Amino acid sequence: MDATIITIGDEILIGQITDTNSAFIAKTLNNIGVRIKEIRSISDNKNRIINTLNDVLKPGGLVLMTGGLGPTSDDITKKVLAEYTGAQRMVLHEEQLTVIEYIALKRKIPMSALNRAQAEVPDTCEVLLNCLGTAPGMWFAHNGAVLVSLPGVPFEMQALMQEKVMPGLQQRFQLRPIYHRTLMTFGLPESMLAECIAPWENALPPYLKLAYLPNPLTGVKLRLSAYDTTQGNVAEEVERQVWRLRQVIGDALYGEESDTLEQVVGRLLLEKGATVAVAESCTGGAIASLITSVPGSSAYFKGAVVAYDNAVKTGLLGVADNTLQTHGAVSLPVVEQMAVGVRRALNADYAIATSGIAGPGGGTPEKPVGTVCFAVASPSGVHAERLSFAADRARNIARASANALNLLRMNMLKNN
Amino acid sequence: MDATIITIGDEILIGQITDTNSAFIAKTLNNIGVRIKEIRSISDNKNRIINTLNDVLKPGGLVLMTGGLGPTSDDITKKVLAEYTGAQRMVLHEEQLTVIEYIALKRKIPMSALNRAQAEVPDTCEVLLNCLGTAPGMWFAHNGAVLVSLPGVPFEMQALMQEKVMPGLQQRFQLRPIYHRTLMTFGLPESMLAECIAPWENALPPYLKLAYLPNPLTGVKLRLSAYDTTQGNVAEEVERQVWRLRQVIGDALYGEESDTLEQVVGRLLLEKGATVAVAESCTGGAIASLITSVPGSSAYFKGAVVAYDNAVKTGLLGVADNTLQTHGAVSLPVVEQMAVGVRRALNADYAIATSGIAGPGGGTPEKPVGTVCFAVASPSGVHAERLSFAADRARNIARASANALNLLRMNMLKNN
Repeated sequence: MDATIITIGDEILIGQITDTNSAFIAKTLNNIGVRIKEIRSISDNKNRIINTLNDVLKPGGLVLMTGGLGPTSDDITKKVLAEYTGAQRMVLHEEQLTVIEYIALKRKIPMSALNRAQAEVPDTCEVLLNCLGTAPGMWFAHNGAVLVSLPGVPFEMQALMQEKVMPGLQQRFQLRPIYHRTLMTFGLPESMLAECIAPWENALPPYLKLAYLPNPLTGVKLRLSAYDTTQGNVAEEVERQVWRLRQVIGDALYGEESDTLEQVVGRLLLEKGATVAVAESCTGGAIASLITSVPGSSAYFKGAVVAYDNAVKTGLLGVADNTLQTHGAVSLPVVEQMAVGVRRALNADYAIATSGIAGPGGGTPEKPVGTVCFAVASPSGVHAERLSFAADRARNIARASANALNLLRMNMLKNN
Repeated sequence: MDATIITIGDEILIGQITDTNSAFIAKTLNNIGVRIKEIRSISDNKNRIINTLNDVLKPGGLVLMTGGLGPTSDDITKKVLAEYTGAQRMVLHEEQLTVIEYIALKRKIPMSALNRAQAEVPDTCEVLLNCLGTAPGMWFAHNGAVLVSLPGVPFEMQALMQEKVMPGLQQRFQLRPIYHRTLMTFGLPESMLAECIAPWENALPPYLKLAYLPNPLTGVKLRLSAYDTTQGNVAEEVERQVWRLRQVIGDALYGEESDTLEQVVGRLLLEKGATVAVAESCTGGAIASLITSVPGSSAYFKGAVVAYDNAVKTGLLGVADNTLQTHGAVSLPVVEQMAVGVRRALNADYAIATSGIAGPGGGTPEKPVGTVCFAVASPSGVHAERLSFAADRARNIARASANALNLLRMNMLKNN
């Protein structure tokens, strides 16, 4: 089955918001073998919605729309779909009304006519009850195709996809899965990785396709895809190929699919029964924030000291005044003392520290913007190094945080 | 002038990456009066690229493509565009080759044939030199339309847009700007805000269009747009309307366009010549990370203590053991002590503290997942409150962080 995603909203076309819904829908549908042919973003405009539907809604196909279902007057999708599918009238959906009343009560908002109208739907659709918001999803069977309209609020759309749309599709259609396997690498730039693994890539069976997805924060992802899963035992063959790849690139391969460095680091700490603490200067809390984004991180994360002010470096972390004066805050001796200091102050087994120049200001010829010093303190000592990123503030912070986590990961693997 | 954006890459269609490039391009073009009709994401497939170009490339129009220009074999855009525009041959672009060689040297990667081929372009295009990466941008004048192809790596694309594409468009076309003004609000849910400002909205002149863009993290954005800027003095009229709106919703209006709560809080601190420190439990460094994402934040940010472990709350922040035992870590008395403690330990004028249950585990009937206690300590005392978010971990952390910043903002405004 082929599908098209349509996202509706002027805010996407003027670049005010980034469309994250399409990626979620694409990924979810892909998992059940529905292949996305195209994603289109169009405006809240009647003619454009109708022209696009005429263009992409084909017998046997699926069209998934998001957005344009809000209570305010600029949202016209529901009205347009009523007309497009030849609805005779709008009907009130009692269950959705109950949800709307409950939400109003919980948020202490009086019920309004606008809110009430959210529960009315065209008589041509089947309602996908939205328990998390006021706009119901709508499922239309139209001209031999399936047309689904979902609210644009990401978590409402996500819940409806998982609880209503996916089961609905699986129940009504014979779907054949596409096999994807994604491998996460860190530390090798794309072209170097490409050359390094060329012999392996060239020996892949013809039904396996390799794609590179470089990302300076998460490293280069490698994706193996088999669209025709009738050939051989795909899962077994992929397993063998992953094993071979691991022989070539070793610990640069840090995980699979949705693994993140912070999750992998967390798993290593749990395996060791060890704890970690963080001392951050230039990363300003970003490393702690990554570590604590993982559910259950309280089992191994003691805490962090964000030491922006030098007085915090000396006061809470015990960095020596004369080390700061001799070497400057962005230096290997200072990050070493920060790592050792936070490890002791927070009574942790491991510690990471960063100090650098995130920019845009503060650079010097010897220490230009993007210079970051890192240290990892562990039961077996302290290791420090310096890297240069030379990007803007946000990317310098993000890359420094990713590299700090990778440094801790490599340190734990080495001392295993 | 109307434009279409095309993003190319299987990774978008299988949902592995989110397309952030389109929003950037749309916003940038919008600023010079180029209106985006549509955004389409398609696969790295020759027929699909050609069919889409046939569909959207119209005389007098602009098509901006990103992606599919990498060195690896799954990237075919350059070859397809050469054929589509009737190129006779590929030519080596010396300056781009120099950039590629420089990048290889800096990254300590040997030059490869793959890297070298990145500097070859169809003879039908004008090269947009990419100083930050290996794939050059390409500008084609084709059948009376402009077709621009840019690399998909966001920062390379962004630099090319700003340094080459925008000046190129402004030089060659008479462009009329669209007028947008965006206002940021925090603290009022969408439907309540809508009713509250309905009388104001209904009195807007007909050429001003209002749109609501709700976001639980940044609050509801309100966007006033004038597409026909020949009517009246648009800028002056918008100014008047913003002033009227402020009379209605007061301090809930916290900024404009790209203002963020962390920037607004930073500006307030700078105006007062005051400093801030943060003590975070459930937000795990996210508040510090937001504050330090603002360039120049070292002028007012002392630092933070992320006190995940209760021993850090008592040790570094001076929270009393018996307060923890009597009330639990997620309680108003504990966050109050955290705020007071970090304000003293880091010698700051203001302090924010959070303690809550981010989830998915750790909830109880009295304190379900999403419960967060906040405190703001200031020269005039300490104020604490409790909120409930009831979402997933990531959203609970993000909403708690935004609310913490807003609480500090309101506190500073009140005591002005």
